[in-house]
Amino acid sequence: MPDSFPLPVFTEDAPLYDQLYRHIAAAIQSGTLSPGSKLPSKRRLCALAGVSMSTVETAYSLLAAEGYVLAKPRSGYVCADLLPPAPAAPASVPEAAPVPTPKWAYDCSTSAVDTSAFPFSSWARITKEAVYENPGLLQRGSPQGDAPLRTALAELLAQYRGVRCSPEQVVVGAGADYLLSLLLQLLPEQKAIALEDPGYPAAYAAASLHGREAVPIPVDSEGMCPEALEKSAAGLAYVVPSHQFPMGVTMPAGRRSRLLHWAASAPNRWLIEDDYDSEFRYSSRPIPALQGLDRAGRVVYMGTFSRSIAPAIRVAYMILPPELLERYRATFSHGACTVSRFEQESLRRFLAQGLYGRHLRRTGNLYRKKCALFAGALEEIPGVTVSGADAGLHFLVTLPRFSEGELVARAAAKSVGIHPLSRYCHAVEAKPSTMVLGFAGLTETELGKAAALLKEAWT
Amino acid sequence: MPDSFPLPVFTEDAPLYDQLYRHIAAAIQSGTLSPGSKLPSKRRLCALAGVSMSTVETAYSLLAAEGYVLAKPRSGYVCADLLPPAPAAPASVPEAAPVPTPKWAYDCSTSAVDTSAFPFSSWARITKEAVYENPGLLQRGSPQGDAPLRTALAELLAQYRGVRCSPEQVVVGAGADYLLSLLLQLLPEQKAIALEDPGYPAAYAAASLHGREAVPIPVDSEGMCPEALEKSAAGLAYVVPSHQFPMGVTMPAGRRSRLLHWAASAPNRWLIEDDYDSEFRYSSRPIPALQGLDRAGRVVYMGTFSRSIAPAIRVAYMILPPELLERYRATFSHGACTVSRFEQESLRRFLAQGLYGRHLRRTGNLYRKKCALFAGALEEIPGVTVSGADAGLHFLVTLPRFSEGELVARAAAKSVGIHPLSRYCHAVEAKPSTMVLGFAGLTETELGKAAALLKEAWT
Repeated sequence: MPDSFPLPVFTEDAPLYDQLYRHIAAAIQSGTLSPGSKLPSKRRLCALAGVSMSTVETAYSLLAAEGYVLAKPRSGYVCADLLPPAPAAPASVPEAAPVPTPKWAYDCSTSAVDTSAFPFSSWARITKEAVYENPGLLQRGSPQGDAPLRTALAELLAQYRGVRCSPEQVVVGAGADYLLSLLLQLLPEQKAIALEDPGYPAAYAAASLHGREAVPIPVDSEGMCPEALEKSAAGLAYVVPSHQFPMGVTMPAGRRSRLLHWAASAPNRWLIEDDYDSEFRYSSRPIPALQGLDRAGRVVYMGTFSRSIAPAIRVAYMILPPELLERYRATFSHGACTVSRFEQESLRRFLAQGLYGRHLRRTGNLYRKKCALFAGALEEIPGVTVSGADAGLHFLVTLPRFSEGELVARAAAKSVGIHPLSRYCHAVEAKPSTMVLGFAGLTETELGKAAALLKEAWT
Repeated sequence: MPDSFPLPVFTEDAPLYDQLYRHIAAAIQSGTLSPGSKLPSKRRLCALAGVSMSTVETAYSLLAAEGYVLAKPRSGYVCADLLPPAPAAPASVPEAAPVPTPKWAYDCSTSAVDTSAFPFSSWARITKEAVYENPGLLQRGSPQGDAPLRTALAELLAQYRGVRCSPEQVVVGAGADYLLSLLLQLLPEQKAIALEDPGYPAAYAAASLHGREAVPIPVDSEGMCPEALEKSAAGLAYVVPSHQFPMGVTMPAGRRSRLLHWAASAPNRWLIEDDYDSEFRYSSRPIPALQGLDRAGRVVYMGTFSRSIAPAIRVAYMILPPELLERYRATFSHGACTVSRFEQESLRRFLAQGLYGRHLRRTGNLYRKKCALFAGALEEIPGVTVSGADAGLHFLVTLPRFSEGELVARAAAKSVGIHPLSRYCHAVEAKPSTMVLGFAGLTETELGKAAALLKEAWT
């Protein structure tokens, strides 16, 4: 037994055996007690440390159980050969993420929604009922999402969007980005993905994260250009036909037919139809989804409640055509749905009790007013053209008198935050002097003030 | 104007303009009205169809807006050239997913948990409060999860698991499988991933879905074998040190040191520590996490509430070392967290109000009793050895008298469902005649009956 055995000083409030155990473990890890050296006998340590036999026995058995010491017959406990601790990394305590300080007095980004109309008391009541009345929901559910919610979604989409599907084709997941990632995992053979240019940044990010080539396809006044798609090597195309992001154009029937024809005219071609904000149209009725026109089973329809209810509600869905549904079941049948079953049940009740329809009407009216107010005020600025304002939660403003950079800088000088169109462009040149303005997150009063400031900035 | 213009029959309850619009759109899509053919003048159609001018005007403007017809100067409306509808796919209405009928009277699978102790009334109250008291949570939150929950998790893990991290390193996501997928997207350079063999099937599935090579590393009585890991080409190793799945072994300190040394001794090496059921230990205290011993910043710690609370609660977390946190922020800073912010806030309250600790004590006692009862009853069967029963929600049973297939078949004949160990094996031979038995989802009475049936089956 080494005379130099480092005796503990018992100071803490913790049990003595635990302090003794941690003291010896630390000495072994640091090398103070070298590999192969013997620990004092239990009796000896009792005397040295002034603790009871049971304290020593407990500490030694913990050390043995965790591999710090080995029990050798007739020689007691021997320190294990722990490799020296790995070299310390350069001291790098992670910095706190930059707190998103509001940089602008008026932020016209496109990701916010109006939550003033959110029915808090109904949602709170529903979530409580969903927990109370459904103890069975605690266990693991279907990876596709629970059947009652999928049935409600299939009915909703048939009624409002002309989507034709059975509840079996619905896959529920925690957000559209998550579902897009899932879909790319289902389609490993798709090495090149056609994306709208300008287009939704998260779709470009998803392609890159899954190691696929993003093929930018120009967008014209009718949406994705079919000539460029047909010439490309892509077998998978991601389109937003009902209100393209960010251009705001709606794809007419002829273009839709042509895209469907492209998808059906060779094997292993697929269209992803992202219908992210189709709930809000102001100047005409919603145009039925591409999916409803698809006779060849080539369209994956995607939608989300993050705009029509709130970004905090992480529920999105996709409708898989039969061939992809088979693949999905073969691949993901053992997983769990990423949406809490209580939240699925809350949403189902929200739909079934007519609260969703009422909420859509209220927010639709709010957005219609906001859109008209903001677009109308901006159109009073000499030279301004507004486009894409007949649907969704954003529109475009073009003012040729200034360059894109000047428009952003002049707005910023008045503390109005806006994104230039070029931010969403990849291979194409952005339409000059054009801004993308979201209006959903600002109140009517704020929109009036923001428009007045932009008028000062841009005249 | 063609004389053959197909007149609509107005029968439905829908507005006349809508019936007229859909009638003509369908005729154009089906080819009954050929491309380039002219529609009747508005006045003519009024007379023919017996409807008002405004009905015809609305229908025609919808058709024009959606691209079915083109307005030609001085010749009225002309049908657009829609490509013929794509060929119909072979009739393939998706079959309903097979309803998971209970195949066994007693199902000893490893995925169920005991939900009898779930505090429904507290959880219902908390979820309601979380909605009512936090209107701000409707807007988009941090992609990593909200700071108050991350702070609570960092404290919980420091206290119970010896994890050392700042709240900034915590990433919250909808399930461990989702977070593993995210991590693989962050580590595209890792082409080969070392996985425990036998091991967790979802980890093998994740590697395959992300196009990586799964490198099976044998598991011995101390967990993943370091010799095989060191010889492999893998730079990323996925380990379950606290209660290996399915072998149930706990990795001792020496083995932990050696794995940390492996990770620290070359650049771009990482350990994923999955601590999925560390909350439940019966015969000794929990062993601190590998992450807490890591001086080189090479360990990603992962945990989940799907076992400690319920599978329905889709909240998991990972602790990123500083270098991966930087990558994460560069890659995912624009996304949204996959867990609803209301659910994040509910969980934070559940932790802060001491309800989680109480729930763990209650379920820990339940599982301890169930484990002892079931393992004890099975050990009475002549020749049976139980292993891995000092932690978690499953253990292993070995009975050399029968082959693996015989053990499964004889249990099935008594309507007891069990999984053979070979189900989790890849390159290694399974330990012969060994079963993996979960006990969490059955009541004590059911466990007693299942054990009696297995005794009949196996003697």
